[in-house]
Amino acid sequence: MAHQSYVLKVSCPDRIGIVSRVSTFLASKQCMIKEANHHADAILGKFFMRNEISDMQMSPEEFETEFKTIADEFEMQWSLSPRIQKKRVIIMVSKQDHCLYDLLYRWKSGEMDYEIPCVISNHLDLKSLVEWHGIPYVHIPVTPDNKPQAFAEVVKWVEHYEADTIVLARYMQIIPPELCEKYPGQIINIHHSFLPSFIGAKPYHQAFERGVKLIGATCHYVTQDLDAGPIIEQEVRRVTHSESAEEMVVLGKDVEKNALARGLKFHLEDRVLLSGNKTIVFA
Amino acid sequence: MAHQSYVLKVSCPDRIGIVSRVSTFLASKQCMIKEANHHADAILGKFFMRNEISDMQMSPEEFETEFKTIADEFEMQWSLSPRIQKKRVIIMVSKQDHCLYDLLYRWKSGEMDYEIPCVISNHLDLKSLVEWHGIPYVHIPVTPDNKPQAFAEVVKWVEHYEADTIVLARYMQIIPPELCEKYPGQIINIHHSFLPSFIGAKPYHQAFERGVKLIGATCHYVTQDLDAGPIIEQEVRRVTHSESAEEMVVLGKDVEKNALARGLKFHLEDRVLLSGNKTIVFA
Amino acid sequence: MAHQSYVLKVSCPDRIGIVSRVSTFLASKQCMIKEANHHADAILGKFFMRNEISDMQMSPEEFETEFKTIADEFEMQWSLSPRIQKKRVIIMVSKQDHCLYDLLYRWKSGEMDYEIPCVISNHLDLKSLVEWHGIPYVHIPVTPDNKPQAFAEVVKWVEHYEADTIVLARYMQIIPPELCEKYPGQIINIHHSFLPSFIGAKPYHQAFERGVKLIGATCHYVTQDLDAGPIIEQEVRRVTHSESAEEMVVLGKDVEKNALARGLKFHLEDRVLLSGNKTIVFA
Amino acid sequence: MAHQSYVLKVSCPDRIGIVSRVSTFLASKQCMIKEANHHADAILGKFFMRNEISDMQMSPEEFETEFKTIADEFEMQWSLSPRIQKKRVIIMVSKQDHCLYDLLYRWKSGEMDYEIPCVISNHLDLKSLVEWHGIPYVHIPVTPDNKPQAFAEVVKWVEHYEADTIVLARYMQIIPPELCEKYPGQIINIHHSFLPSFIGAKPYHQAFERGVKLIGATCHYVTQDLDAGPIIEQEVRRVTHSESAEEMVVLGKDVEKNALARGLKFHLEDRVLLSGNKTIVFA
Repeated sequence: MAHQSYVLKVSCPDRIGIVSRVSTFLASKQCMIKEANHHADAILGKFFMRNEISDMQMSPEEFETEFKTIADEFEMQWSLSPRIQKKRVIIMVSKQDHCLYDLLYRWKSGEMDYEIPCVISNHLDLKSLVEWHGIPYVHIPVTPDNKPQAFAEVVKWVEHYEADTIVLARYMQIIPPELCEKYPGQIINIHHSFLPSFIGAKPYHQAFERGVKLIGATCHYVTQDLDAGPIIEQEVRRVTHSESAEEMVVLGKDVEKNALARGLKFHLEDRVLLSGNKTIVFA
Repeated sequence: MAHQSYVLKVSCPDRIGIVSRVSTFLASKQCMIKEANHHADAILGKFFMRNEISDMQMSPEEFETEFKTIADEFEMQWSLSPRIQKKRVIIMVSKQDHCLYDLLYRWKSGEMDYEIPCVISNHLDLKSLVEWHGIPYVHIPVTPDNKPQAFAEVVKWVEHYEADTIVLARYMQIIPPELCEKYPGQIINIHHSFLPSFIGAKPYHQAFERGVKLIGATCHYVTQDLDAGPIIEQEVRRVTHSESAEEMVVLGKDVEKNALARGLKFHLEDRVLLSGNKTIVFA
Repeated sequence: MAHQSYVLKVSCPDRIGIVSRVSTFLASKQCMIKEANHHADAILGKFFMRNEISDMQMSPEEFETEFKTIADEFEMQWSLSPRIQKKRVIIMVSKQDHCLYDLLYRWKSGEMDYEIPCVISNHLDLKSLVEWHGIPYVHIPVTPDNKPQAFAEVVKWVEHYEADTIVLARYMQIIPPELCEKYPGQIINIHHSFLPSFIGAKPYHQAFERGVKLIGATCHYVTQDLDAGPIIEQEVRRVTHSESAEEMVVLGKDVEKNALARGLKFHLEDRVLLSGNKTIVFA
Repeated sequence: MAHQSYVLKVSCPDRIGIVSRVSTFLASKQCMIKEANHHADAILGKFFMRNEISDMQMSPEEFETEFKTIADEFEMQWSLSPRIQKKRVIIMVSKQDHCLYDLLYRWKSGEMDYEIPCVISNHLDLKSLVEWHGIPYVHIPVTPDNKPQAFAEVVKWVEHYEADTIVLARYMQIIPPELCEKYPGQIINIHHSFLPSFIGAKPYHQAFERGVKLIGATCHYVTQDLDAGPIIEQEVRRVTHSESAEEMVVLGKDVEKNALARGLKFHLEDRVLLSGNKTIVFA
């Protein structure tokens, strides 16, 4: 495990000396800091830090033992993630394929560095595409009657594959509250509007009705409040009077896949820290 | 009045032959069409057209008399605006000066072609700036008690100067419903959010609370429904976790002045047609 | 062939009466104009027009016969393309797959309406991907010695499949002058820089060396002058000092595929007219 | 001088322990780090750092004395700038006023925090505007014959006002090599193209000829190589076939003033570090 690259994420009450103690600790262990980001939230009085360490010469267990003193002293919430150990991301889809296609490409090309242990869908439409990529396709139909069992099966697969992230790539079912609670900061959704505008169903049709001149998409963590979780990334594009609601749906596909890909990339590289219902993104 | 440039705007029920009749009429009068734009709204069954005519060799009155037959036949709503006769725009402000500064520059430089017969404000802060530009500054204080009288005075000045457009350049008072009705499609507001997100007061603080990753501004016609009138133009810019609500207010100034300038320019060039609560912008 | 949608493209010397004659002709044939665009080039004295006609009730042959009088009178260059008859686009690739993946998705999803009779490559790397989509993969190796034969074979396939467009989707070979001449306005390339900056090889490395703050991509028609043909579409994205040349290569992939997709879409919908070494794009 | 905000900029050969030593030093002096940015250039083997320190409780002289040991040990180039001591920026203009207007507004509104001891121009056109803002206007005519004397006078005023930055806000004269050498990293120019495209005169006309679909502007430090100095910021906007070269000139004004304002803001906040002919911008 030695000589590897790690990301250390820290959040704690703000005070003098945090960077000093952490960086001195890292230097004493011969850790080279490849990239560092700080954020002090003056309103909350909190400090957030991300250090990307190259060439660490101790095991995560040793690190934890030795870092614990500092972490306790500064009341830190912290995590250490090895870059070499790719995140395991289960993608959930319904019938729409644009986000899935895009995520599969970015995975296959190595442009984004993660594993897809399986794709879960309530439909069979995208089975062939997924399997061509050599990825198992798990079909879990969802009906008004079987929702609890269906999502229990989802949990079973998440546990089976030891997934740490679930991406809802235009999965059209509402996630039950228990799941949202079970995986905080681990379920990522792409909503097809510029939130908080046009929450809920058919956002492009809402946008068309209102006559907006830009349409957008929002990549956010899922919480129990529908479309109201912490926003990771947003994108927009210009539209005009000449686009129908249906044409906006098509144009929006590019916006959605770009916002999702960017948001997921930040998540995969441990660049996102949660601060209440907001995110700090060390892009 | 001959040999001038005019804009002809038309809207009517859609059917075959509109363009043919109008363009044949224009050609028969030796009118060169410099720019033409069409839009057919399939849902409403309506047709919208803008023709920019260079070198017209008849007076507006002659045009009206001769064009009337076609207009009646096709049940057209239409207008003919000479480009040489600049629109007369009264700008209303409170204390904030960024949009005013920008509009004054674009006026003074000739970048945008319009007259500013006066600036009306409920404060005195911007008097010197306006008067340096050689423009009268009308001070109309507004208190909870004098609103009807104050806005009666606004109307008086609009009539006195024969203004055809009122721009609310961060004017912080709500316009009374009677005025909105009196000047439909003639009052332009800049709202400091990406509508319909963050209607009402302190939109940047609302945006900060929600943790959005883009802030925006919306240029729209004023109607009786607060911040809900037809949208002419919208702009956004990226923000991050590191911006406070106060910093967003400052960053937003550029977005506001750009959205307002673009929206007003479309209006001045007769590029905006109203279609219910939406706009058609022949940009 | 009746009751279909067609695009009529026209360019001719500018004078009064063109729109009138064309639109009156179309109205007399009961053609509904769904979308119309004009452009008058004051410097060249030329007029350009695109009409999208829905519900045409005559055959293209009848149209041609009847329209000829007008076309001759106004010295028009013109074309009439049925929307139902999809363009046949041969995609040429080497080893890089991001543009190909994107074009295949937009084809498969119907988001862009065209046929891909085959993909031609000088390598075998992308064979499986292409064939999974049910498209023939033609492998034509290119060496310093066999270039004339190799490109003769390309021509053979273009003719065999009656292709009307060739897309170089990061095809790394220079197209011989004879081919450029043979297919003017029919070969589309994506160059991985914001032309005319960084012509030639390794543009991202050139961009990195120069320290630019935006990288770009250019979709253009291929002519005999390397990277100097008429530009159809360009896109950029922001980079910072923290990106290496290699990271720019990865970030640029999104820019390239978006610029190519947008440019190709304009071409497929007959929205691009050539005017010397420039394009008129009725977007 | 105590209890103030400072920016510490450092560049040095990269090695383990830099952040540790600097941050431990700062913490030992009770300096709160409000914002920190790092960049390690793997190719050059160099490390760059910016620390914004709030509430420093020692004088700059004490700081210098004590910091010297660390600076020497790590072979640092470094500077410490008090935020309270505004940069003194001389703006040079010819006849065009859009950038000047914009910079005056951002100065007057306090949106950008700097002093303008005087504006220097080779023409008298903008005298009234500048003087209305209460800023001295220095008129230094430039002819083919008097260039050495004219620029000697510029230097005189720079020294007289102890200016630390010169902004060429569309100043149409080429700066003599001696001046470029005398003020490295202190003269900022706005070039009206997306460099390295369209170097030299009439870039919008060059852009028009080439038929590009985006026009741009580049804010850069001036060096002896015309339009080839380190780039600080770049912006672009979309254009179409319908814009003439003259219209591009007008549209470009917004791009120029935005790129210049952003670039200058980075410079004023000590966010720009030079690295050869490139910049590191800790935005």
